[in-house]
Amino acid sequence: MIRHVVVFRWNDTVTDADIAATGAALDALAPVIPEIAAYRHGPDLRLAPTNADYTVVGDFESVDDYLVYRDHPEHQRFIAAHITGRVSDRVAVQFEF
Amino acid sequence: MIRHVVVFRWNDTVTDADIAATGAALDALAPVIPEIAAYRHGPDLRLAPTNADYTVVGDFESVDDYLVYRDHPEHQRFIAAHITGRVSDRVAVQFEF
Repeated sequence: MIRHVVVFRWNDTVTDADIAATGAALDALAPVIPEIAAYRHGPDLRLAPTNADYTVVGDFESVDDYLVYRDHPEHQRFIAAHITGRVSDRVAVQFEF
Repeated sequence: MIRHVVVFRWNDTVTDADIAATGAALDALAPVIPEIAAYRHGPDLRLAPTNADYTVVGDFESVDDYLVYRDHPEHQRFIAAHITGRVSDRVAVQFEF
């Protein structure tokens, strides 16, 4: 399996309502991309002061399936609507397990 | 469930052998901390040039179980041996799913 992990820090302009809308959009995204085997996401629980703000973790059967997700038009629309211009930091990793 | 995600960038001094030893140490860590419900980790697959280097994802039944893991002496020994002084960047999130 391939696991895609992405961690964000929001800009100061991002509101709690924005974040809730982002979570709802991610919930709506998963069913329309069948290559997603598992999809978990959520806001940081604030257990540590240095933590980032939000994480998305997607599991895929293969690198090819991950690439379909990465480049999928609905995923790109999600990024344009909810991520672009809203994050001050983004870090990602894909690894095999 | 609580998911703990941590993403690292290694210092330039860290070798492939070091990273392999870190992976083996993580594999050895999971069985000695029963509060870990699932534990996945690995080096970045280099699908994107801006990616970080390594990720650990741990799942826990509760925040309390995560805190037992976080503060466990064997986990602290792992951090001292494999992380402290070896990373140029570390970002973490804990979220509920």
